[in-house]
Amino acid sequence: MGKGKFITFEGIDGCGKSTQLAITARFLEERGQTPLIIREPGGTSIGEKIRTILLDKKNDEMCAITELLLYEAARAQITQEKIKPSLEQGNIVLCDRFFDSTFAYQGYARGLGTKVVESLNLLATEGLEPDLTFLFDITPEDAFKRRAARGESEDRLEAMGLGFQEEVRKGYLEALATVGSKRIKIIDASKSPEEIFETVKKYLLDEGQQ
Amino acid sequence: MGKGKFITFEGIDGCGKSTQLAITARFLEERGQTPLIIREPGGTSIGEKIRTILLDKKNDEMCAITELLLYEAARAQITQEKIKPSLEQGNIVLCDRFFDSTFAYQGYARGLGTKVVESLNLLATEGLEPDLTFLFDITPEDAFKRRAARGESEDRLEAMGLGFQEEVRKGYLEALATVGSKRIKIIDASKSPEEIFETVKKYLLDEGQQ
Repeated sequence: MGKGKFITFEGIDGCGKSTQLAITARFLEERGQTPLIIREPGGTSIGEKIRTILLDKKNDEMCAITELLLYEAARAQITQEKIKPSLEQGNIVLCDRFFDSTFAYQGYARGLGTKVVESLNLLATEGLEPDLTFLFDITPEDAFKRRAARGESEDRLEAMGLGFQEEVRKGYLEALATVGSKRIKIIDASKSPEEIFETVKKYLLDEGQQ
Repeated sequence: MGKGKFITFEGIDGCGKSTQLAITARFLEERGQTPLIIREPGGTSIGEKIRTILLDKKNDEMCAITELLLYEAARAQITQEKIKPSLEQGNIVLCDRFFDSTFAYQGYARGLGTKVVESLNLLATEGLEPDLTFLFDITPEDAFKRRAARGESEDRLEAMGLGFQEEVRKGYLEALATVGSKRIKIIDASKSPEEIFETVKKYLLDEGQQ
């Protein structure tokens, strides 16, 4: 086993997590590292096919348990095919969303309950947990304005509206309350990308010393 | 709630279950009934997309847990979208494979364990169980000859070979030993389709009297 680090980027849609992941990757590359950059759902050939089913707005008859099981199927594949082998080689893995998303979206906002999500997360990951998770916290209204400014079209989950995003936000804060701030670092995502990254960088440097 | 009946057709590939399902459907239609005929995985728009991922031979890197979760995702969708509404209207539902397949294939032959499969089956079906299950029992060798005679091309799971099919067969017999013959009726599938259907018909008529 190597000394890889598994770092996940979480938050509601439009919170800026993908931007921060890209800045983090550049920062690490400038320091001579070659992080593996992946996203959920997806990140593998099979996982991207699952992602297409999950995000297609035409699939609006999808029931909540189907949705949960599809996320976990994609997670099982990326964990075994990409994340674990990369960590074993000592790499840093940066993942755009991981199981805290499922806790917040399906367990909390969809109302499936956090117990069933926790047991499926454990099955899909075979016990693997991130070393460090950034939770970019922002109001759904501010996130919506940011996405609108980028002119992005909505996927099936984004189309659920502000009330749903508010539930997801509460779900993330519930995850933080459950897991604690040792792994999950909450970051005020209403600031500028540069200001946000200053906080991210501080945690990255702390983690690097462990 | 109506008095619908949920009947499933199980066995290894090439056991003749799809043929018996078709004969059963014709028999019921001649008696004035309009059974819902479905198959797993699939049977819904979302489920058929999941089926495509599951059976595509190109997806040979799929890990066993991903496979299990995809089957359960398709099952959750067909249960809520098709089976439960149809049973509530008092219909007979004939399903080509259901959760006993997952017990035999993923739980037993893939070695994931029957406990985890049972708990996922319960989650996906929200507790729905078939009223009657036909298990068409045949040796993998005889089943292979039958499939070869039909000139069928193999899918990803069929391509696993005779040893795997033998494990699946054992898994089905284990399911029978666990659940008992009250629900699962074992039928010698080495006989002719007409002889096999005589046995199927007897159980159907018994079930109709309950």
